Amino acid sequence: MQKPPLILVTNDDGITAPGIRALVEVMSQLGRVVVVAPDKPQSAMGHAITINNTLYLNKISAPDAGILEYACSGTPVDCVKMAVCELLDEKPALCVSGFNYGSNSSINVIYSGTMSAAVEAAIEGIPAIGFSLQDFDWHADFESVKPFVKRIASEVLENKLPEGVLLNVNFPKLPYDDIKGVKVCRQAKAQWIEKFDRRKNPSGREYYWLTGEFVNQDQGEDTDEWALDNGFVSVVPVHYDMTAHHAIRELNTWNLNG
Amino acid sequence: MQKPPLILVTNDDGITAPGIRALVEVMSQLGRVVVVAPDKPQSAMGHAITINNTLYLNKISAPDAGILEYACSGTPVDCVKMAVCELLDEKPALCVSGFNYGSNSSINVIYSGTMSAAVEAAIEGIPAIGFSLQDFDWHADFESVKPFVKRIASEVLENKLPEGVLLNVNFPKLPYDDIKGVKVCRQAKAQWIEKFDRRKNPSGREYYWLTGEFVNQDQGEDTDEWALDNGFVSVVPVHYDMTAHHAIRELNTWNLNG
Repeated sequence: MQKPPLILVTNDDGITAPGIRALVEVMSQLGRVVVVAPDKPQSAMGHAITINNTLYLNKISAPDAGILEYACSGTPVDCVKMAVCELLDEKPALCVSGFNYGSNSSINVIYSGTMSAAVEAAIEGIPAIGFSLQDFDWHADFESVKPFVKRIASEVLENKLPEGVLLNVNFPKLPYDDIKGVKVCRQAKAQWIEKFDRRKNPSGREYYWLTGEFVNQDQGEDTDEWALDNGFVSVVPVHYDMTAHHAIRELNTWNLNG
Repeated sequence: MQKPPLILVTNDDGITAPGIRALVEVMSQLGRVVVVAPDKPQSAMGHAITINNTLYLNKISAPDAGILEYACSGTPVDCVKMAVCELLDEKPALCVSGFNYGSNSSINVIYSGTMSAAVEAAIEGIPAIGFSLQDFDWHADFESVKPFVKRIASEVLENKLPEGVLLNVNFPKLPYDDIKGVKVCRQAKAQWIEKFDRRKNPSGREYYWLTGEFVNQDQGEDTDEWALDNGFVSVVPVHYDMTAHHAIRELNTWNLNG
């Protein structure tokens, strides 16, 4: 008899976040789950890795019976590297990251620790999905999205994914019956307009908080932002070839050799 | 009379690194330079930003006369955001990041703080270039690459860049006369095979150092790795649309709606 597939679960909010617990619950219905997640919040860490500092990895007592869980002192990407290269004897059939609090649609894919963990898994040759919910409430209700998560993860387990491709899945904050379905999308051309909130610390020294407003100037109806705004689950296939292939021809007309 | 262009210089090795000094020197020949760089090394920070902590920004006495310099407590991406949104009244005509020690070719573009700073500038609508030299020596000699840097930056100032595109420029460690020229390339399909160096701290607790071997399985002669291996400067146009457009059609054949 074939063993159920090995599924690696991680996130960027840390191993104690309710979001990862909800994801572990769904994945336990699909395979053998191993959790390797940051031991503290690592939001917005992007694709950071730890090269100038040491890493710790602690096996923790599992709140979900029978599941191996490890807390890692590093970033989400470190967690995936440690799981794959140090911890596991077997290559996972799937790596899922999340649930993230707040969507990772559009340009947020690049800042997100949740998505970077999934990107790293794809680099390591593992089918990978990042899941995010448009809800910043720490005790957000993940019930309405669980059937979609199970369906999408099952499809990836069954069909694999094209080489070098992973999925960025974002859920609108809606009851199950109000979600209109799943849309395969492209990343919207949107960005953050930052504002720095300047304050003074008790010693009188100035410091800043990074804040900002998300602005979507992309009118396309094939984007993740459009899907979420219109009650759909957005699924964006993501890759890590950052080459702007369309620009190569133009650059070859430049006088770069002096 | 038109003012010389405003050029923002940053890096990921910190404001005191000799690499950024060499880049400031070249840029001073092309425009008005403002430096906003991390106050400590921030290598391999990827596209991390600081949202759960405060940021400090200190104007420092400039070692290079007449140049405004600021040290920021955040990541390379934070530096660019602070420069553009908090510090500067004028949008820079160019943002350059580097020199990085060691190349940022191939998949390294995604881990690199140097490149992520340039990506962030491009997101903010600023023509941007990341420069890296294949030499990890802190006192590496940047003389042989300076003429190329001046030429490439001049071309970007003159031609701008296609919307949403920045440049990833890597230099082989060679004397000027041995550099064969500049090649516009794509990012090679290469990756790191990680190894974790397991040690014990003085209290007997296990910890790890992330190490690894870079493996290039891409045989193409149009890649950045090929260019560097063959004595060329590699120039890869980079964008931040992570959508795997080629995978959308296939995913639409999947049964994602259950």
